[in-house]
Amino acid sequence: MWPDTRLCDLLGIDHPIIQAPMAGTTTPAMAAAVSNAGGLGSHGCAALSAEGLAEDMGALAKATNRAVNLNFFCHVPPEMTEARHAAILAAMAPHYQAAGVDPPEEMPQAGLHPFGATHLERLLARPPAVVSFHFGLPEREAVAALKEAGCRILCSATTVAEARWLEERGVDAIIAQGWEAGGHRGVFLDVAHDAQVGLMALVPQVADAVKVPVIAAGGIADGRGIAAAFALGASGVQIGTGFITVPEAGRKPHHHEALAESRDDSSRVTRAGSGRVARAHRTPWIDAMAEVEPAPFPLMYHYTAPLQHAEPEAHQFSLYGQSAALAPTGGAGARLERLVEEARAALG
Amino acid sequence: MWPDTRLCDLLGIDHPIIQAPMAGTTTPAMAAAVSNAGGLGSHGCAALSAEGLAEDMGALAKATNRAVNLNFFCHVPPEMTEARHAAILAAMAPHYQAAGVDPPEEMPQAGLHPFGATHLERLLARPPAVVSFHFGLPEREAVAALKEAGCRILCSATTVAEARWLEERGVDAIIAQGWEAGGHRGVFLDVAHDAQVGLMALVPQVADAVKVPVIAAGGIADGRGIAAAFALGASGVQIGTGFITVPEAGRKPHHHEALAESRDDSSRVTRAGSGRVARAHRTPWIDAMAEVEPAPFPLMYHYTAPLQHAEPEAHQFSLYGQSAALAPTGGAGARLERLVEEARAALG
Repeated sequence: MWPDTRLCDLLGIDHPIIQAPMAGTTTPAMAAAVSNAGGLGSHGCAALSAEGLAEDMGALAKATNRAVNLNFFCHVPPEMTEARHAAILAAMAPHYQAAGVDPPEEMPQAGLHPFGATHLERLLARPPAVVSFHFGLPEREAVAALKEAGCRILCSATTVAEARWLEERGVDAIIAQGWEAGGHRGVFLDVAHDAQVGLMALVPQVADAVKVPVIAAGGIADGRGIAAAFALGASGVQIGTGFITVPEAGRKPHHHEALAESRDDSSRVTRAGSGRVARAHRTPWIDAMAEVEPAPFPLMYHYTAPLQHAEPEAHQFSLYGQSAALAPTGGAGARLERLVEEARAALG
Repeated sequence: MWPDTRLCDLLGIDHPIIQAPMAGTTTPAMAAAVSNAGGLGSHGCAALSAEGLAEDMGALAKATNRAVNLNFFCHVPPEMTEARHAAILAAMAPHYQAAGVDPPEEMPQAGLHPFGATHLERLLARPPAVVSFHFGLPEREAVAALKEAGCRILCSATTVAEARWLEERGVDAIIAQGWEAGGHRGVFLDVAHDAQVGLMALVPQVADAVKVPVIAAGGIADGRGIAAAFALGASGVQIGTGFITVPEAGRKPHHHEALAESRDDSSRVTRAGSGRVARAHRTPWIDAMAEVEPAPFPLMYHYTAPLQHAEPEAHQFSLYGQSAALAPTGGAGARLERLVEEARAALG
């Protein structure tokens, strides 16, 4: 039924639909359910400890013998100074005061580590079928070692220039992430200036620029979007928001409530939550935070955590994309099957 | 060949492809060429005097007997105070100084008038097949009079909420304008907060929300985009950037040069040029102007004109969308035919 089978052939899957890795939301049970239904389940591993990663890899191996994708971040480790720390505390003071919480006086420590030697060691010990990266790639030797071990490598690109950069470094397929996408934008070549390219413009221009298969991501949550992605030249899609509310997923405070009331225009891109551009539920607090120059990713979490702890609804950082309202319902496997059926009708 | 003929039936055209009205770029010759090739040619009339409008309507009548679309702006007339004038001059002072030009000391006068009684009178004297609006609609009586005279009414929406608002007021079809689109964004319900919805998310959600046909606009410049728009639920497309460089078009300094070097990531949305959000060629000057709170649309033109006169390349306000690199070449009629052929192949 698929007009392009390059991605299925490359990844060894029946349907070219990838459930997006969403760190903190995905679970082994969720990813396995999608893979068992013929798609590619993904697990966001960026926030896991080495032990947590090993544990989740074990759980995945028990739950499915199909291809699964493990995802990691490749951000540049942040630098922080006492002066910047003081400046952020000063800018945030009205927010702490309004919420009645003490400012986090201690200097921040990064809780999310970029992909490194420990991750590589764990993966090489039990190579997953697919490894994907966000915010660029690890060093060339790590990519080469994973490919040597049989892993297929995916990475997000938000511009044609990023897609070309990734192809030159050996990526097996490129996730073209449009402006519509929920969560952190994968922009990495010019982090200070996000080009904000919409998926309708991004997919055909990336497809023209690279030879590897292109996976369309962002604003796709039903069969119409899947069919449109193929028309634009994609060989598959990655869908995140469409899977957030599955019962197998982890749940953050107020995230599902935000999704239940989401509309096309109820999200915005913000650096308020983590320090890096991400599409999230728009709230008065998120709007107000546009005035605060944030700490570099992921250190901003340190400054927002006390607010989220004290008043979780008012200070939520609920990530979702512009097509949340189109998402299917039900369990992860049932959603994959529903998307396949809708795509079959739309492509037919 | 078209999977949905609602728009063709509504407008009396062969192909559901609208050449976008681009005030200052479109000409009667350009619009007529597109209509004669079976699409819907449009002429942007927002900047025309009453005499200019009558003259261009006469030229169109001579050049084609097919349906043509005349477009007007419906912005709220701007208010200006001496204090705000002084503040803008102060903020702009470094720019005037760097360019070696005298600041425009006199208070600004609006050169672009919203659709009003004079326009209505001219249109009722010789009703065009289609009238389209940007930035909302004129008063209900004007819409009713145009419909009574046989005109089909189109208007741009950038959100589902705007689409619903337009349908409730009797619009015959809705132009869903995505974030990718070049030129002024049609946002009108919440001008202070542009929701920035990408076309991939906007089209299916608008199509779900309204009964009238939906026209997809923004980031479409080849047959792949046209096929994708139909997959998303559109009944037609509007293409602007794909027609800017036709020989029949008016030409602004450096606009074609900007298009020749355009990429997916070479534009940005800015209020610098006119005071209203518009997607334009990104330059160091446009970036620097993000610090200046502009005058309300269209009065900002008054403050940028001296810069553009003195150093047109450095201060250009060249409007185009994110898929400029995909645009066809040749004359207006030939481009329409090329788009039809590409769409035929893509729709398969």
